[in-house]
Amino acid sequence: MGNILAERTVLRNPFLSAMIKAMRQSRLFTKTKKEAPADEISRNAELLIRGGYIHKEMAGVYSYLPLGFRVLKKIENIIRKEMNLVGGVEMKTAILQNKEIWETTNRWDDKEVDIWFKTKLKNGGEVGLSWSNEEDFANILKQYVSSYKDLPLYLYDFKDILRNETRSKSGILRGREFYWKALYSFARDEAEHHDFYEKMKVAYQNIFKRVGISHLTYLTFASGGAFSKYSHEFQTITSAGEDTIYVGEDKALAVNKEVMEDEVLISLGLEKNKLVEMRAIEVGNIFTLGTSKSEALNLSYTDKNGDKKPVFMGSYGIGLGRLMGTVVEVLSDDKGIVWPESIAPFAVHLLRLGEDKVVGQTAEDVYRKLSERGVEVMLDDRDNVSAGEKFADADLLGIPLRAVISERSIKDGGVELKKRTEDKGKIVSSEELLKMLKPSVIRPDAYF
Amino acid sequence: MGNILAERTVLRNPFLSAMIKAMRQSRLFTKTKKEAPADEISRNAELLIRGGYIHKEMAGVYSYLPLGFRVLKKIENIIRKEMNLVGGVEMKTAILQNKEIWETTNRWDDKEVDIWFKTKLKNGGEVGLSWSNEEDFANILKQYVSSYKDLPLYLYDFKDILRNETRSKSGILRGREFYWKALYSFARDEAEHHDFYEKMKVAYQNIFKRVGISHLTYLTFASGGAFSKYSHEFQTITSAGEDTIYVGEDKALAVNKEVMEDEVLISLGLEKNKLVEMRAIEVGNIFTLGTSKSEALNLSYTDKNGDKKPVFMGSYGIGLGRLMGTVVEVLSDDKGIVWPESIAPFAVHLLRLGEDKVVGQTAEDVYRKLSERGVEVMLDDRDNVSAGEKFADADLLGIPLRAVISERSIKDGGVELKKRTEDKGKIVSSEELLKMLKPSVIRPDAYF
Repeated sequence: MGNILAERTVLRNPFLSAMIKAMRQSRLFTKTKKEAPADEISRNAELLIRGGYIHKEMAGVYSYLPLGFRVLKKIENIIRKEMNLVGGVEMKTAILQNKEIWETTNRWDDKEVDIWFKTKLKNGGEVGLSWSNEEDFANILKQYVSSYKDLPLYLYDFKDILRNETRSKSGILRGREFYWKALYSFARDEAEHHDFYEKMKVAYQNIFKRVGISHLTYLTFASGGAFSKYSHEFQTITSAGEDTIYVGEDKALAVNKEVMEDEVLISLGLEKNKLVEMRAIEVGNIFTLGTSKSEALNLSYTDKNGDKKPVFMGSYGIGLGRLMGTVVEVLSDDKGIVWPESIAPFAVHLLRLGEDKVVGQTAEDVYRKLSERGVEVMLDDRDNVSAGEKFADADLLGIPLRAVISERSIKDGGVELKKRTEDKGKIVSSEELLKMLKPSVIRPDAYF
Repeated sequence: MGNILAERTVLRNPFLSAMIKAMRQSRLFTKTKKEAPADEISRNAELLIRGGYIHKEMAGVYSYLPLGFRVLKKIENIIRKEMNLVGGVEMKTAILQNKEIWETTNRWDDKEVDIWFKTKLKNGGEVGLSWSNEEDFANILKQYVSSYKDLPLYLYDFKDILRNETRSKSGILRGREFYWKALYSFARDEAEHHDFYEKMKVAYQNIFKRVGISHLTYLTFASGGAFSKYSHEFQTITSAGEDTIYVGEDKALAVNKEVMEDEVLISLGLEKNKLVEMRAIEVGNIFTLGTSKSEALNLSYTDKNGDKKPVFMGSYGIGLGRLMGTVVEVLSDDKGIVWPESIAPFAVHLLRLGEDKVVGQTAEDVYRKLSERGVEVMLDDRDNVSAGEKFADADLLGIPLRAVISERSIKDGGVELKKRTEDKGKIVSSEELLKMLKPSVIRPDAYF
C-alpha cells in the first residue's frame, strides 16, 4: 500500500518524478577518476577533477560540472541570505565595461591595473571585461542618488569576474575567471559607513561558519591598498594559501605580514611574542573605500543643510569558487573530499551493493521515499561496480552521510549508516532513516 | 492582538523582517523617469529604463537593476523547471574559450564566425569569449562518454554570452552581452534525438505559455544554418521583430521567409494563399546538429555491437533578456509595462495615498500580513508624492495587481483593488484581500 501511494505521489508531481529519474549515479555523466591529472599540482583541483566536480578549460579557467554546480549554488544561497539580512539588494551588472568610466577613476590604464582583459568592438572602440565593480555601481547610482534621503544603499551582485593573472596553478583558489559576490555600500558619512562595516564583519563570519571553516578562519588586519590605510581580510589557515599571517589566538585576530608593524599591533592590543606565523588564504575581504571614487565619479548628495557631499563607499567581496576550493583544501582527508552538510551536493549518498533483487527493491524504495520527503539523496545504482569501488567513490565524493543497502545490511535489520568523518557505521531500519533525515532547506527541484 | 502576533512573527524570522524593511518604494534606489532616454529608439528599452528595470552601459549592454533582476530570475526559474522536466542537468561552463577546441570545428576564424570577442592572455596566447557553447560541452563530454550506456545526455547552463554585434539598437532584444540558456542533447542516433527534440518543442511551448506570450508565438520552420537543412524557431509577432515570417493560423505554424519555398510548404501541409506575412522576433530556437561536431571533436561511443559511432547532437537556446524584452514589446500599453503574473517583479503593488495616520497604519498592516503570507508585495510608502504620480508609476511599472489604501478606500470598506489590465477597480476588505492572494511559488527570501 505504501508503495502504491508513493507511486501516485510521484505521478502527481512531475518534478519529483524527473528528479527521481535523474539523481542516480548511473545517470551522472561524470565519472570518478583514480588518477589526478598530471598538470594539476593543487589538492583542491586534484580532488575536484577526480570527483567530476569541475573541468579544466585552461590554466585558471574551470567549468562546474553538475556536482560542482550544486555546491556552488549552495554557497551562493548562503551568501545571498546573509547579504539580504544586512539590507543588501541584488542586481546583475554587465561584464563588458565602459572605458570612459574607468578612465575617470584612473583605473583603465594597464599600468594602473595590470589584470585587465580588454577586447575590441567591431565598429570601433575598446571595452574592458569586468575584473571589479566599484566604478560600475557608483556610475549607476549617480543618476538616482541626489538627496540624503536616498542613502544609505547596499547593492550587490554575483557575477563572473575575469582577471588576466599570470599565476594560476592553485586550481579554483585563484582563477583567471571566477564567480564572485561583490557588495558595495553607499553611506552618508564615515559613521554610517562604520556601522554597516561592522555588520558586514558579522555577516562574513556567519558565511564562513555556515560553510564549515570558521574554526580555521581569522579576521585579519591588512593593507587597504590604494583606498585606505587598512582593510580587513578573512584568512583561512592552510598550507595551500598564498599569504602569511600572524595569528593572535587569544584575541581571535590576525595580522597580515604586509602590515605587521608595531603601530598596528599596539592598536589591536596584540603582543608580538604571542603571535604565530601561518600560511593562509584570503577567503573574503572588506574595504573602506571612502570618498575617492565618488569624488572622481561625481557621486554626491545634498545633506539636510543643503550642502553637497560625496558619498562614502565600502566594498565587500567573496569568491565563491575560492571558498569552495578552500573547503576542499582544509576539510579533505587522504580518501577524498569531506563536505559540510550545508554545501554538500547531496545530504545522503545511498549505495546499493550487489545485484540482488530484494536489495534493489529496498534501495529504490528508500531512495524514492527520501526524495519525496525532500531529502537530497544520490543513489549509487550502478551495476557491475564492486562494493570496494563504490565505497572508494563515496569517500572521494565526500557526501556527509553514506547509507548502504546490501544483503548483509538487510539481514542485520536495514541500512548501514556512516558519516563521512566516521570509521564505522551502524545499522538503522529504513523507517528510522526516514525519520532521522530532515528535508533540504533549498528546494531540490530548483536546480537538480 | 493581531498586530502584536504579527510583530512577534517578524522578530522570529529575520529574513521576513529584512524583507519587510526592503520591499518599500521609499527604499528602492531606482526611480521612475518621465522621459525616455534620447538614444533609445526601442519600446522595450524605453519602458524598462523609465521604470528603473535596466541601466544602459553602452549600446547593446545593459545591467539589470533590482526590479529587472527579479523579472530575469523568474524567467530563469521557469526555464530551469522545464529543462529539468525533460531530463536536463544543469552545470556552469566558462566564459573564456580555448582557441584550440574551436579551431577543431573550424569556428575560430573571424571569417567563419564574425561575432567573436577575443582577448589576449598576459603570458601569451589568444582566448575567445563565449558566444555559443556546442564545442565546449562536446569537449567536456569527450572524457566521460565511451559506451552506449553513457547516452543519451541532456546538459544545460545559464550564462552571459558575448557577441560582437554591429546592430544593437533594439534594447534588450539584441545585445552584445546577454543572459542565455543553452541545452545540448547527446543521443545515440537520429531516432533517439528526434524523440527528445519533440519533447523540447513542448518544453519551449510551455515556457512561452508560462511567460504569457503563447498567443502570439508560433513554431516556425526555419533554416538549419550550417548544421542541417532546417531548424525550428519560436517566433513572437511584433513590429519590433527583425524577422519576416508567414503564419498559417489554422495549423498554428509559421515559415521563416528564408525557407519560404514550395517544397517546404508542401511538407508542412501549408497553403501559400492562406499564409499571412508578419514581423516577428525569434524568442527561441531548436537545432538538429547531427554528427558534424562530434565527428570533428571526436566525440563517439561504442554501440551494443562494439561499433564506434559519432554522438548525435542537438542544440536548444533561449535568450532571457530577449524574452523579457519581447514581453514588454507585446504586452505593454500606452501607460507602461503589463507584466504577466508569472514573471512580474511583485504580485501586488500596494499604494498608500496621503499621509493620514490611519491610512498609514492600515497600509503597514496589510503590507506586513501579505509579506508574512508569502505574497510578493511592494509598498509605495513614499511621502510627498501625489496620488496621480503614484498611479502613473504603478502603470509604468506594470505590476499585475494594484491595491490602493486611502482615506476614501477605508471609508468605502477597505482596499481598492484593480488589475493592471482593468480600467476600474473594486473595493474589498483587508481580510478578503488576504484570502484572495496566494503565496508566491518562489520563496521571496531567495532573492529580494
